[in-house]
Amino acid sequence: MSSSAKPRIAVIGLGSMGYGMASALKRAGFEVTGCDVAAETVQRFVSEGGEGARTPADAARDADIVVSVVVNAAQTETILFGKDGVAETLAKGAVFVSSATMDPEIARRLAKQLETTGRHYLDAPISGGAQRAAQGELTILASGSAAAFAGARPALDAMAAKLYELGDAAGQGAAFKMINQLLAGVHIAAASEAIAFAAKQGLDIRKVYEVITASAGNSWMFENRMPHVLDGDYTPRSAVEIFVKDLGIIQDMARSAKFPVPVSAAALQMFLMTAASGMGRDDDASVARMYARVTGTKLPGEPN
Amino acid sequence: MSSSAKPRIAVIGLGSMGYGMASALKRAGFEVTGCDVAAETVQRFVSEGGEGARTPADAARDADIVVSVVVNAAQTETILFGKDGVAETLAKGAVFVSSATMDPEIARRLAKQLETTGRHYLDAPISGGAQRAAQGELTILASGSAAAFAGARPALDAMAAKLYELGDAAGQGAAFKMINQLLAGVHIAAASEAIAFAAKQGLDIRKVYEVITASAGNSWMFENRMPHVLDGDYTPRSAVEIFVKDLGIIQDMARSAKFPVPVSAAALQMFLMTAASGMGRDDDASVARMYARVTGTKLPGEPN
Repeated sequence: MSSSAKPRIAVIGLGSMGYGMASALKRAGFEVTGCDVAAETVQRFVSEGGEGARTPADAARDADIVVSVVVNAAQTETILFGKDGVAETLAKGAVFVSSATMDPEIARRLAKQLETTGRHYLDAPISGGAQRAAQGELTILASGSAAAFAGARPALDAMAAKLYELGDAAGQGAAFKMINQLLAGVHIAAASEAIAFAAKQGLDIRKVYEVITASAGNSWMFENRMPHVLDGDYTPRSAVEIFVKDLGIIQDMARSAKFPVPVSAAALQMFLMTAASGMGRDDDASVARMYARVTGTKLPGEPN
Repeated sequence: MSSSAKPRIAVIGLGSMGYGMASALKRAGFEVTGCDVAAETVQRFVSEGGEGARTPADAARDADIVVSVVVNAAQTETILFGKDGVAETLAKGAVFVSSATMDPEIARRLAKQLETTGRHYLDAPISGGAQRAAQGELTILASGSAAAFAGARPALDAMAAKLYELGDAAGQGAAFKMINQLLAGVHIAAASEAIAFAAKQGLDIRKVYEVITASAGNSWMFENRMPHVLDGDYTPRSAVEIFVKDLGIIQDMARSAKFPVPVSAAALQMFLMTAASGMGRDDDASVARMYARVTGTKLPGEPN
């Protein structure tokens, strides 16, 4: 690209987060190429004024910045180094921005593998949900080389309301994200345990919500997720399986560091029980339903 | 009392909470009698314009409202029905306000025992800390008969910024408080697990605090307690032993209801490990120190 031209951006993975991020980038005036395994999603993006690509290699061919918005390390690795992957075509000096939540060790390995070929890697997990993605108001927890930050910055500025710069190598962003996921996962499990136990004790759970959100027992997750339980609405905003994955990564990281994490280990078991009961793709507040069903406790919209 | 006169109030238990509550009541214009096992504390209260009593029976003799500010059910029962207890002297129609956190089952039993003798019982656990106690700005989670509320209301109004009326019988206030304690205890244990694990991963824990308090992993307890870890200051604001007690009550209640609570069970074990390591009377953020010591992780102010 010339120094005055806007960088060209490819977004790979047009799910609820990626589609919003690609739209926000397009609205900010960038030329954006979208790529997804679902051809109809790419068509929709093209019909709204974007460009489309069939494979990550095609999407990356003319890109200065590739933003990867997939769910885990395995998908990220496939997009980078699999057949028709980004690494086949990405120009020297271009930057790959990885937003998946993953083990920091894997983020370091992927970064090293890409950097040895002369391309840059920014470890940049995101948080904030689909709505903030579409508004360009995500929180991004980023780490990487100065060159990776410099290359990615125009896209970061358009996607994020809050950009944390957390270190000069891949892995730091991932590690901060994992600490957040540890807490978020435990808080959902605790909120579910508490609200179902309150219902079992005969308490009015709407009153419980009112009291707790004004008290020292509150958490961001309690306040955000428990309305789903009050409404009996388990349409997935974020699915149980996400925390099966993320608390699983915590267990792997902690075991590898010989660091006991019994509280998050207990929380993981509750997500696993919920997924095992057939609710893996439902909203993660379904952990409360699992407690209720096991104990014969009545919750709104539930048959017990 | 005549209908126009201000009710006379006794406060039993002049610890950091009770002393503040007695002072707030005095400042609101009530005639307040203080009573405590520590004679010098009573003397201090008298020197500041209050009245003093040697025993709960003495304190209750002329009181319209008795506010009990002790730490648990056993102390509450002793104050009520032990030798020189409130029940020996309290007038018919007067009200006993119990602020200790306890099993709802015990609150119901104590209330019934007092009510059969013609006195009223308000189940009224508090939260908010010593400073808000002294300012008359506590949160009070109350339940009891209409007569108990009516009798206690002048004192409640002077002690509380927020009064929740949670039901017409003792036990409901206690149950709401226990749900809050379940969450608060799990959140302290999770915050401790997360911050110590972050330190083990080599992250800058001040940066972790900044990121988490702005993210979905935040909790009231993370935000309130983790500064103690950042500063290496474990002066007890609230001690580890409080949650050994309160999460223990949760386990008792849950077992009795045949309701599994594995997340709070794991958190209790962490408080027990911290107390067993000799830190039971230190600040409850000491759970983070316990994780750090066990794993050889360096935290501010700690020798590892």
